Amino acid sequence: MRRIIFLLVAVATLAGVVALAAAPHSDEKEAAPIFVKTIPPGYRDWKLVSVAHEEGQLKDIRAILGNDLAIQTYREGKLPFPDGAIIGRIAWNHVPSEENNKVFGRAQSFVAGSEPAWYLQFMVKDSKKYEATGGWGYAQFDKDGKPGPDSDLQKCFPCHQAIKDRDFVFTRYTP
Amino acid sequence: MRRIIFLLVAVATLAGVVALAAAPHSDEKEAAPIFVKTIPPGYRDWKLVSVAHEEGQLKDIRAILGNDLAIQTYREGKLPFPDGAIIGRIAWNHVPSEENNKVFGRAQSFVAGSEPAWYLQFMVKDSKKYEATGGWGYAQFDKDGKPGPDSDLQKCFPCHQAIKDRDFVFTRYTP
Repeated sequence: MRRIIFLLVAVATLAGVVALAAAPHSDEKEAAPIFVKTIPPGYRDWKLVSVAHEEGQLKDIRAILGNDLAIQTYREGKLPFPDGAIIGRIAWNHVPSEENNKVFGRAQSFVAGSEPAWYLQFMVKDSKKYEATGGWGYAQFDKDGKPGPDSDLQKCFPCHQAIKDRDFVFTRYTP
Repeated sequence: MRRIIFLLVAVATLAGVVALAAAPHSDEKEAAPIFVKTIPPGYRDWKLVSVAHEEGQLKDIRAILGNDLAIQTYREGKLPFPDGAIIGRIAWNHVPSEENNKVFGRAQSFVAGSEPAWYLQFMVKDSKKYEATGGWGYAQFDKDGKPGPDSDLQKCFPCHQAIKDRDFVFTRYTP
């Protein structure tokens, strides 16, 4: 009888120890999202993905660039983007060009002006590191290279979830 | 007396011959402008100079790209562009993005749509070959790569003369 009780207690203890050992794993799945705080080097030399123009509160004109892995993925048309792919977005204030308008003879020309508050944004693919935000690390920097605060960056992924079926990337490649 | 007359006639004839021999040279200076009829290879991989948006009759959004010589010149800020520099302009129709607008919650987002009639334009620097048009060979191509007719290309240089003090190039580099 004592042996049976001893065995039951031993098994229960062992079960408890295993449960405690397993607990941290479930904590990892709810870890805080990780953001990117360093500007990817050489981004200004990357190839062009496309261009866009945002009105509303942004009033910017922008270029979306991609590193070689990103561009290759876009051109092959096979999602998801692989780890290491990086997409960058440079935005400038959308401003009229007086000198161009004079030549055209009408007000029609808008060019890239000064830099807005969040001049540079990036999405860096690492499906393990950035698992909490769909495999992408979000980043933004001002014109002095200062990274954006987490309170801003936390707003990226919730919107990008709308385009989950294109691996969370809104911009389409335009040949 | 006869010798003097003979000498005068000989000199006059010689002058006439020299004038005839010289005539083709003045014709060369008024030679027809030369335009570019071949798409520079690899242009889609060039680095970004800047972006712009044209309303009026164009209604396009565009990226201006440059080959390495052009980009280097822009970054060093030392005009004129050297022979071999090429600047390309890709234009897309400026269209609203329904899917982006849904996410933003308002109509604000414009993206690069289909290709307009004159999708690609280039300026190729060769100060001797293109002397008649300020050292630049002008080109345009539709989405199928068909070159534009001379009757269109003849309209390029007259407008670009307005920006002669920036080596005939309107687009400014935006870092």
